[in-house]
Amino acid sequence: MEGEDAMRFFIENPAPSTLVDVENKVNKFIDLQPKDRNIVLVTSGGTLVPLEKNMVRYIDNFSAGNRGAASAEYFCKSGYAVIFLYRNYGMKPFVRHFEGPWTGIFTKKSVGSSSSWEIKDSLRNVLNNSLENLELMNERNQLLCLPYTTLTEYVWYLRTVAECLKCIRSRALFYLAAAVSDFHIPSQDMSEHKIQSGAGKDKLELTMRPVPKFLRYLVDSWAPEALIISFKLETDENILIDKARTALHRYNHQLVIANLLSTRRRSVAFVTLDSVAWLHLSDEDLRNGVEIEDYIVSRCVQLHKAA
Amino acid sequence: MEGEDAMRFFIENPAPSTLVDVENKVNKFIDLQPKDRNIVLVTSGGTLVPLEKNMVRYIDNFSAGNRGAASAEYFCKSGYAVIFLYRNYGMKPFVRHFEGPWTGIFTKKSVGSSSSWEIKDSLRNVLNNSLENLELMNERNQLLCLPYTTLTEYVWYLRTVAECLKCIRSRALFYLAAAVSDFHIPSQDMSEHKIQSGAGKDKLELTMRPVPKFLRYLVDSWAPEALIISFKLETDENILIDKARTALHRYNHQLVIANLLSTRRRSVAFVTLDSVAWLHLSDEDLRNGVEIEDYIVSRCVQLHKAA
Repeated sequence: MEGEDAMRFFIENPAPSTLVDVENKVNKFIDLQPKDRNIVLVTSGGTLVPLEKNMVRYIDNFSAGNRGAASAEYFCKSGYAVIFLYRNYGMKPFVRHFEGPWTGIFTKKSVGSSSSWEIKDSLRNVLNNSLENLELMNERNQLLCLPYTTLTEYVWYLRTVAECLKCIRSRALFYLAAAVSDFHIPSQDMSEHKIQSGAGKDKLELTMRPVPKFLRYLVDSWAPEALIISFKLETDENILIDKARTALHRYNHQLVIANLLSTRRRSVAFVTLDSVAWLHLSDEDLRNGVEIEDYIVSRCVQLHKAA
Repeated sequence: MEGEDAMRFFIENPAPSTLVDVENKVNKFIDLQPKDRNIVLVTSGGTLVPLEKNMVRYIDNFSAGNRGAASAEYFCKSGYAVIFLYRNYGMKPFVRHFEGPWTGIFTKKSVGSSSSWEIKDSLRNVLNNSLENLELMNERNQLLCLPYTTLTEYVWYLRTVAECLKCIRSRALFYLAAAVSDFHIPSQDMSEHKIQSGAGKDKLELTMRPVPKFLRYLVDSWAPEALIISFKLETDENILIDKARTALHRYNHQLVIANLLSTRRRSVAFVTLDSVAWLHLSDEDLRNGVEIEDYIVSRCVQLHKAA
């Protein structure tokens, strides 16, 4: 059962018009899965919170979507079917290796008196591999990418995907790597038009309200039989583990993966109610270009098997 | 002379470490220009305002950077040297036609039993043209792209570029299409770490302070002899022209190009102290894929010649 706060959120922030399409895609994707293939929902990127109804300004959460995109890739390689709920224009699995200015992929080649721009020889193999893998995952129905932009879209999509995944019960894994805003401006408090600055205005006061704790409803009623893994990102290491524990107590799910902004690429902690296990990349791992998501996903897959 | 508010801003928000490099690049670029070539600074995209010193959350301004990137391209075609101060990862002139997922550029081609991913035949010409134009502009020293992310970077870069352009006096044009934040959180008020939500916290109050009106200092002291054109974007058409006029009165520059968020691709108003001239794309223009920036830039170039 959802609480009053959640029900109010869904009333005040109505479903995006794209929701039916998302639901159809997810149901079709689930239908296509072999019965012995597990499905993971990987969320990725930050949610955008508008400050005005006719949006000019917004609050955003820092997240390039590296962790989510890399993890989705390793889940695919582990044989999972992956529903990848990602921030539009953010990183995507397999092709994430090419983010940055795409113009760098090309170089000018002269043929006789004419010239044309071609894929750089040095990138050809990586490009071929990336696009091949992506195509292969599509052919095997192992990857469904769903873009979102705003907090409202994210929450509606999350609930819908969870409801669709109910039918596969404990074969579903939720890997919630997206940076979801804790606060927003409820639509009834939101300015219709661009907030004016104007001469003499010496401050702008924004009152933001907490976003309902949807993780609670995910655990209790949207996906009661699934394994649910959330992330906790902090900048202050003194509070990191406590915050992760508090989340476990509050939402009653199985695992929090905790990390600090500054060291998130090489250290994470797996936090349960009665244990903290740190995972650090070794110097050798770092030299060899090993990604921490490779280890994180392995451990999550083991945990899912054991659950 | 800068006001106290501006001086305080530069003290409280120290210069980014990249500033020296930017200054060197700009000076070198100016040195390379023929004496009869005008130089325009085109600013583009939105400025990011952090909410925490160890930034996890930030306020951003909606702007894909279409207008700036398109305008920079038309200024290049008009023979200007263009300094393009743009939001990192945003749209860029010439290659802007390919924004969106770059993977769409490629298609799989089979050669005998093997296959590889190649540039789509249908895109080859456009891609060649775009990259050729970009290279040509670089060879002619007609385009210098400078990325920024935060408000602080933007303001420091703007002042530096303006100071460098002082030597060419009225041959400089400022075309300020970036969506610059009106409010920010001064560093002494900023939380060191990620702002905590926590149970029972029923709201988050953010007090933002106005950003000094740097346009005034640009007009009065950083670039007193240049032609300065600013943009005004609103969502409420009832206040648009008044807001543009107020800016002209307040900053004493030559032209405001005013536009509404919803119609900005087909209508803009050129607002001076004693005139409002609307420019609308015709149905035929729209059918032919004419961009409004083509007309906007033509008119600005004429104005610069006449000044």
